[in-house]
Amino acid sequence: MNNVFVIGVGLIGGSFALDIKELYPQCKIHGVDKNENHLQEAEELGVIDEISNFEDLKNAEVVVVAIPVDSALQVLPKVLDHISDDTIVFDVGSTKKDICEIIKSHPRRRNFLAAHPIAGTEFSGPKAAIKQLYKNKTNIICEVEETAFKLQEKALKLFSDLGMRIRYMNPEAHDKHIAYVSHLSHISSFMLGKTVIEKEKNERDIFDMAGSGFASTVRLAKSSPAMWTPIFKQNKANVIETLDEYIENLKHFKKLMEDDDFEAVFNEMETTNHIKDILNGIE
Amino acid sequence: MNNVFVIGVGLIGGSFALDIKELYPQCKIHGVDKNENHLQEAEELGVIDEISNFEDLKNAEVVVVAIPVDSALQVLPKVLDHISDDTIVFDVGSTKKDICEIIKSHPRRRNFLAAHPIAGTEFSGPKAAIKQLYKNKTNIICEVEETAFKLQEKALKLFSDLGMRIRYMNPEAHDKHIAYVSHLSHISSFMLGKTVIEKEKNERDIFDMAGSGFASTVRLAKSSPAMWTPIFKQNKANVIETLDEYIENLKHFKKLMEDDDFEAVFNEMETTNHIKDILNGIE
Repeated sequence: MNNVFVIGVGLIGGSFALDIKELYPQCKIHGVDKNENHLQEAEELGVIDEISNFEDLKNAEVVVVAIPVDSALQVLPKVLDHISDDTIVFDVGSTKKDICEIIKSHPRRRNFLAAHPIAGTEFSGPKAAIKQLYKNKTNIICEVEETAFKLQEKALKLFSDLGMRIRYMNPEAHDKHIAYVSHLSHISSFMLGKTVIEKEKNERDIFDMAGSGFASTVRLAKSSPAMWTPIFKQNKANVIETLDEYIENLKHFKKLMEDDDFEAVFNEMETTNHIKDILNGIE
Repeated sequence: MNNVFVIGVGLIGGSFALDIKELYPQCKIHGVDKNENHLQEAEELGVIDEISNFEDLKNAEVVVVAIPVDSALQVLPKVLDHISDDTIVFDVGSTKKDICEIIKSHPRRRNFLAAHPIAGTEFSGPKAAIKQLYKNKTNIICEVEETAFKLQEKALKLFSDLGMRIRYMNPEAHDKHIAYVSHLSHISSFMLGKTVIEKEKNERDIFDMAGSGFASTVRLAKSSPAMWTPIFKQNKANVIETLDEYIENLKHFKKLMEDDDFEAVFNEMETTNHIKDILNGIE
């Protein structure tokens, strides 16, 4: 691999850049971003080798599109317009249905692979890029059959070199499941943060009484609104469904408390303790 | 310090035992627990030096009561009945109003200090005890003026040796504030776990798609129902108030999504990002 283009040089794109440089020392990383400051910063930090543009995409072997999911809908067709026949382009967005839909009839559809690496932190920008972010993480690939076989192979080799395991899924199933295990937990965390901040105007009190449990539960409330707003917008129906169920479960728990049915409260928690076994594989 | 009694040799009591032994090597740690297996285990692990009983409490200099908050209401008066004049007894429960109420008129009220160290993990039992759990953690003390001055001093010296910072608060304020920064986040986490488990009957799917963000948000859903049920029971009114506000915030967020007001969705998240500054002091 000699020329990799990263469009969007933030946490996700930047972390791909760092690992690719380490894996293939001869490879040149070209950065494209609408944010000039981020480009400068990425170059200074050594995350990218060179600031580039859409015209140069014709020289790309691999293009990583790592931008918010609303911008991706605009940018991806433009990227496909500029690449050569042998270029593989993949995105990394947290929603897959709209992106697959929008490039469905693009003449270069077979140069595109729809991907979602389940990796990240609550930070953003080139400074947030870290090495080995993708090691032992899952990469969900959608509509793999729509990608040219040789280009699939190239992308899969890269993902394998980065240490990722692959799961195949259709875009609708992806968006539905990810609403539960990712999108909902961001909202539950943001709203928890909001509830506590609203109540505790005196921040000193929050700080003094909050422990590591609270910190863990609201960690995702540090996430970037610019990244998350378009995700919620694109996955609106699924996210609202998860929110309905979550709210119902909270109301039921509250009702059990109001009815002094603490045996049922105990059972609710005991049943959910089963999450331990599920999480053993993640942490 | 020569004789410390730990009543309840689990995560919290056991972690006190481990640090006290390290700080005062001459000190003998006596363990009391209604769970015989835990006592055996604590002795085998070296968490306690000796299995003991209520009759021997007359020899105690310090007694740590580290049991679920409902049992504490039964056990604490009995402990006070057995100690000598110079013994300091403190509890560590996550609710403070009921415990202060129940020993209000006890002849040995001045031997008791109501404490709540903001420390712990989602694990439980003697095996979960760890060294330095209390280092740099906050210990909230309630009704300090009700404790004999010399005995306050003894307890504060111990907390200081353990590396804790002290905050004084009345029991009502403690129970109200802690409902927000601790009790609510446990419920939000349990119900998040429940929602996802209910939906995703195929656990393999959860495991594959869930990332570190989800793991962090549901971490508290691993917590012990035996510990948490009595906390929710004792702090029922405050917890229900926090749940009402949390549910309202979630419903409002859902309404904004339904109305396609994604500018407001963005603003909700951006305002709550302020949690970063608050958490900087905790993590």
